[in-house]
Amino acid sequence: MEYLDHLGIRAVEAKQKLQFLSTEQKNQGLDCVARALTDRQEDILKANARDYEIAKEGGMAEGLLDRLKLTSDRIEAMAEGLRQIEALPDPVGEIMESFDRPNGLHIDKVRVPMGVIGIIYEARPNVTADAFGLCFKTGNAVILKGGKDAFYSNQAITEVIREALEKIQIPADAIQLIENNDRAVTTAFMQLKQYVDVLIPRGGAGLIRAVVENSTIPVIETGTGNCHIFVDEDADLDKAIPIIINAKTQRIGVCNACESLLVHEKIADSFLPKLGRALQEKQVEIRGDEKVTELIPGSLQAAEEDYGREYLDYIISMKTVSSVEEAIAHINRYNTRHSDAILTENEEHMKQFLQGVDSACVYVNASTRFTDGFEFGFGAEVGISTQKLHARGPMGLKELTTYKYWIRGNGQIRK
Amino acid sequence: MEYLDHLGIRAVEAKQKLQFLSTEQKNQGLDCVARALTDRQEDILKANARDYEIAKEGGMAEGLLDRLKLTSDRIEAMAEGLRQIEALPDPVGEIMESFDRPNGLHIDKVRVPMGVIGIIYEARPNVTADAFGLCFKTGNAVILKGGKDAFYSNQAITEVIREALEKIQIPADAIQLIENNDRAVTTAFMQLKQYVDVLIPRGGAGLIRAVVENSTIPVIETGTGNCHIFVDEDADLDKAIPIIINAKTQRIGVCNACESLLVHEKIADSFLPKLGRALQEKQVEIRGDEKVTELIPGSLQAAEEDYGREYLDYIISMKTVSSVEEAIAHINRYNTRHSDAILTENEEHMKQFLQGVDSACVYVNASTRFTDGFEFGFGAEVGISTQKLHARGPMGLKELTTYKYWIRGNGQIRK
Repeated sequence: MEYLDHLGIRAVEAKQKLQFLSTEQKNQGLDCVARALTDRQEDILKANARDYEIAKEGGMAEGLLDRLKLTSDRIEAMAEGLRQIEALPDPVGEIMESFDRPNGLHIDKVRVPMGVIGIIYEARPNVTADAFGLCFKTGNAVILKGGKDAFYSNQAITEVIREALEKIQIPADAIQLIENNDRAVTTAFMQLKQYVDVLIPRGGAGLIRAVVENSTIPVIETGTGNCHIFVDEDADLDKAIPIIINAKTQRIGVCNACESLLVHEKIADSFLPKLGRALQEKQVEIRGDEKVTELIPGSLQAAEEDYGREYLDYIISMKTVSSVEEAIAHINRYNTRHSDAILTENEEHMKQFLQGVDSACVYVNASTRFTDGFEFGFGAEVGISTQKLHARGPMGLKELTTYKYWIRGNGQIRK
Repeated sequence: MEYLDHLGIRAVEAKQKLQFLSTEQKNQGLDCVARALTDRQEDILKANARDYEIAKEGGMAEGLLDRLKLTSDRIEAMAEGLRQIEALPDPVGEIMESFDRPNGLHIDKVRVPMGVIGIIYEARPNVTADAFGLCFKTGNAVILKGGKDAFYSNQAITEVIREALEKIQIPADAIQLIENNDRAVTTAFMQLKQYVDVLIPRGGAGLIRAVVENSTIPVIETGTGNCHIFVDEDADLDKAIPIIINAKTQRIGVCNACESLLVHEKIADSFLPKLGRALQEKQVEIRGDEKVTELIPGSLQAAEEDYGREYLDYIISMKTVSSVEEAIAHINRYNTRHSDAILTENEEHMKQFLQGVDSACVYVNASTRFTDGFEFGFGAEVGISTQKLHARGPMGLKELTTYKYWIRGNGQIRK
């Protein structure tokens, strides 16, 4: 694939220069790009209108059409996003550790950019500017493969960014867009190992699976969340209902929404009818075990598969359990290593749950909706990692860097 | 593959228990296993003799036969290795960061085991005990796939370890060996994503490539090293020759040996003849560019491919360059992101080289042979990572762990 090779070589050339940019130069770059997005919004809106028309004619669903659509306000939000990244501290160059060896070698562990980052995403054109901003601030070159439905929008946004960078003598190849929507090209991109240091998919479960299965480049898996809340026998039930309603309904289509609820059988009789009414008031369909359907009128019988589903919808699965151990075992079987919570006032149960549940984020007495870069104070969100290598949970700018060792000697040889 | 599913399920059951073991319990386990290896060496030696005989009949080369062969001393060294791991600090449970959010959430970032680690390796049976020790000390369950040439040895060692653990009520499934040498089983193992959290290949370039290409489990790529030394125009030439001889010849078959040398053209006339003699005295074959062959009698003309080769032999490639920039560009083109050195007394060139060379370990005025867990003071060596995700360079025990966030609240919901 000559086309991809060409992109790869240019990205590698760009990364060599980007790694030497000072924080000031990078911030100036972000500022110029933010202004250019506002200044040239007509071009972007025109390109977006073209995507929108094609998608609408092709019968795209309302919700997706809305995600695709850009407005003057949304472009302003993209520019504002870049300014927020500008304000964040630059992780590159940090001396993470320093140590001296008995033989006189001095070793520094230094934070450096990854190099070239590949990002594969779906139909949200705002990801284009956002991904650029995060990679650029961390001194990385980025190669983007966006969804074909947002093709013209992504092309226009990329063009605006490249021109803005060129004007201030920063390599335009800091951002490159793959302008070929062949599936074979996307698959070949996932194997562009000689140029790309890390690949991040951003999108639904299908996209992530395809990347994990096909990539030979190290992948940071982000994403799907089958998040649980366990209401323990020692829960403060006054706190429980607002937390559950928030985790389930505050935003329905996000990866940190609660999809499944476990309730200790000792409190089922008193708690479930009340909880059922609260959820049903919010139009949430309940799918539960026998005890649940018995205690919550209008609830449905859950199939075993329900416990493994990320609904992203007004549906919740529910199950009664007899102990915190049973809750932990159920969660570890069905969760996606994302976010799970226990509601309890019992210190021993908290500890057991925090240690035993195998998730990036384990909560006590709070909504799972806080698994988010901004909520954690990281400032900008690269994604939520659900794997265990490199980064787990909300990823900030630091997670787009790696390190290297600088070893200084004065003639040391190994005996 | 029912067989692998079975191993996976047992490993997951074991990890649930192993993560709760105290440092004391883990050290006791290592101690018992070390003693059992010594006590039961007859069984291990018998099994090893069987492997050795088959391999010898099959025509295995002398060097490989030597790697395969166990002796009483070598078993003692395996036991001693476990005792060394026992003496290292336990990274699990460390609170890496703690922070409070304005909404009152308290967040701890806690170091935890990976869970289940898969290790695929070649014909060295000592890796079996070594890999177990490293994974066990970090609270991980390990599934091993060793080379078929060491099959009976690995089986015997695994059995001794499992029995020793069982005796002190630690789950024997802390270590499991895949006892099926079908290639299809190994490939399926690389895709056992629902049970295995991370996969580490230990071996030659071919094995590593196969794992990277076939695995759907996150991989830590270890290994190949095409390591460079650049002798700058401002090098102290008295230091240079001992460093080069050490890096090339102290141990020929290792990944941090020097395989390629760059020399600034300004010092070529004075330095190369002397260097050539020193290398040739050590029986090192020199393959160089025109200038090199002109200045070093008996040296051969290098082909372009020579610059990309990891010889692991008494051969070195050599090239003259006109600047530190050219040296950096050459190295970044041909190296394997492992270890590269500059020899110079010029502060500006040091800085350029340290920043510009894209390797795990970048050296100034020292041999590349120090890229090693013990030499870095990490105590035990899991491998040398040549990728940028998660870990780079020598990996110690910490690199077999991940983290999770513990978030404690008192009813927080997201607005």
